[in-house]
Amino acid sequence: MSDERERSRRGVLRTAAGVTLGAGIAAGVPAGTAAAATAGKGEGEGEARKPGPVEVAVLLYEGFTALDAVGPYESLCRVPGVQVTMVAVKAGPVLTDTRDMEIVATKSLRQVPRPDVMVIPGGGGAGMYAVLENTRILDWVRRAHRHTLWTTSVCAGAAILGKAGLMRGVPATTHWALRDYLKEVGAIDTPGRFVESGKIITAAGISAGIDMGLYLASRLSDERVGRALELALEYDPEPPFGTGSPGKTDAGTRTLALKLLADAAP
Amino acid sequence: MSDERERSRRGVLRTAAGVTLGAGIAAGVPAGTAAAATAGKGEGEGEARKPGPVEVAVLLYEGFTALDAVGPYESLCRVPGVQVTMVAVKAGPVLTDTRDMEIVATKSLRQVPRPDVMVIPGGGGAGMYAVLENTRILDWVRRAHRHTLWTTSVCAGAAILGKAGLMRGVPATTHWALRDYLKEVGAIDTPGRFVESGKIITAAGISAGIDMGLYLASRLSDERVGRALELALEYDPEPPFGTGSPGKTDAGTRTLALKLLADAAP
Repeated sequence: MSDERERSRRGVLRTAAGVTLGAGIAAGVPAGTAAAATAGKGEGEGEARKPGPVEVAVLLYEGFTALDAVGPYESLCRVPGVQVTMVAVKAGPVLTDTRDMEIVATKSLRQVPRPDVMVIPGGGGAGMYAVLENTRILDWVRRAHRHTLWTTSVCAGAAILGKAGLMRGVPATTHWALRDYLKEVGAIDTPGRFVESGKIITAAGISAGIDMGLYLASRLSDERVGRALELALEYDPEPPFGTGSPGKTDAGTRTLALKLLADAAP
Repeated sequence: MSDERERSRRGVLRTAAGVTLGAGIAAGVPAGTAAAATAGKGEGEGEARKPGPVEVAVLLYEGFTALDAVGPYESLCRVPGVQVTMVAVKAGPVLTDTRDMEIVATKSLRQVPRPDVMVIPGGGGAGMYAVLENTRILDWVRRAHRHTLWTTSVCAGAAILGKAGLMRGVPATTHWALRDYLKEVGAIDTPGRFVESGKIITAAGISAGIDMGLYLASRLSDERVGRALELALEYDPEPPFGTGSPGKTDAGTRTLALKLLADAAP
């Protein structure tokens, strides 16, 4: 089990990318923007990037899940040389899936055509289905991906990357309840808290964006910063029930989880 | 160590309240608002509450830490019979500690004088110091606490409860870097991912609000709902570095963590 957990924790070991979490961290590049560009080049699309801070764009859309966006935000916003920006089709407040919270998109997609890092959160209910048909969002994702250092998703965000045509043959993960959809868009369903494949990193459900965000923090800076940010966030979790993955629970709990997700985001 | 972790996970065992996490969950009350009221009465201030959904007010103020607020929000917003509302001195967008994200407060403090549950997030830099001198906020916290079923904090939020005079003799926790301040306001510094003492629950740093939120979800509903929400959020964490608490790291990492926190929230 501890072996299994270890392999699972380092789920990237099981991707085709051949970039392991361990190696990625060991390779740790010096902090700052140049470093991030280098790291990006190391990952693939190696074109010169504009000067200035590394711009991380977190996509918001009506129906997004708050923690999917805020987990990576909180993990990345203190990385030296990194600027995190919330973006949406139009700048302004954007409602979450449960419709009782709004996060402000400070810039429109048009204002951020070429982010260095793209973070695509998942969502729930009608909003999620609408995004999968929203050509302005899908086009932005497709075009921005050509120039990113890293393209990342949390939870159902992987479905958006898939709908944008970026997941064919890509080892990836998503929320446990959506893994069949990943196959529909041609991804290679791969277990792991997060899965790295070239410059694409997909995280599992909702809370997994924190794990991915801290790892990405180390890739945009160095391992020292990643380790320090994990401590800064006091990310030493003790889930009260130990039921955080389907394999650790029963059918009744899985059914209730799906019902609570569905009822909260009609 | 696994014993220590277990005791730590159930940090509430070490509080004066005598309500253990295990017992609290075992006691699990049926879902819904009446149940929550009952649970609240079980915890102390047992006055009849108004009919309607259980209102959870998450306090926002300029300089709050996003995940401190969003962790509990995400854990509670799908609990049957519960309504989570973001509140601030004035309704409208509120800037986080790192000043690159805004969450909208949908109601003012005056509009929510008697929330059933109060969630007080921590913050950073000047904003945090300002709150500790903000009499409108401290008065609201003090008055609302008289009627809450649960009064909770995440990270430095415990300092706000302390400044409001609610922590004298109360076993409590906070961000690892702030535990001395807790003693200054008369709290009993108590290890634990979160610490329950009567109707006051304090969580450790930033990410600990998720652990506390899921536990609180079970107390506002029942254990089945808590277990299902932990699965819904796929809260099966695998911190990439294993450096999430001071005892698991070194002085250099602690110094860098404090520097990154300070630099990001001047």
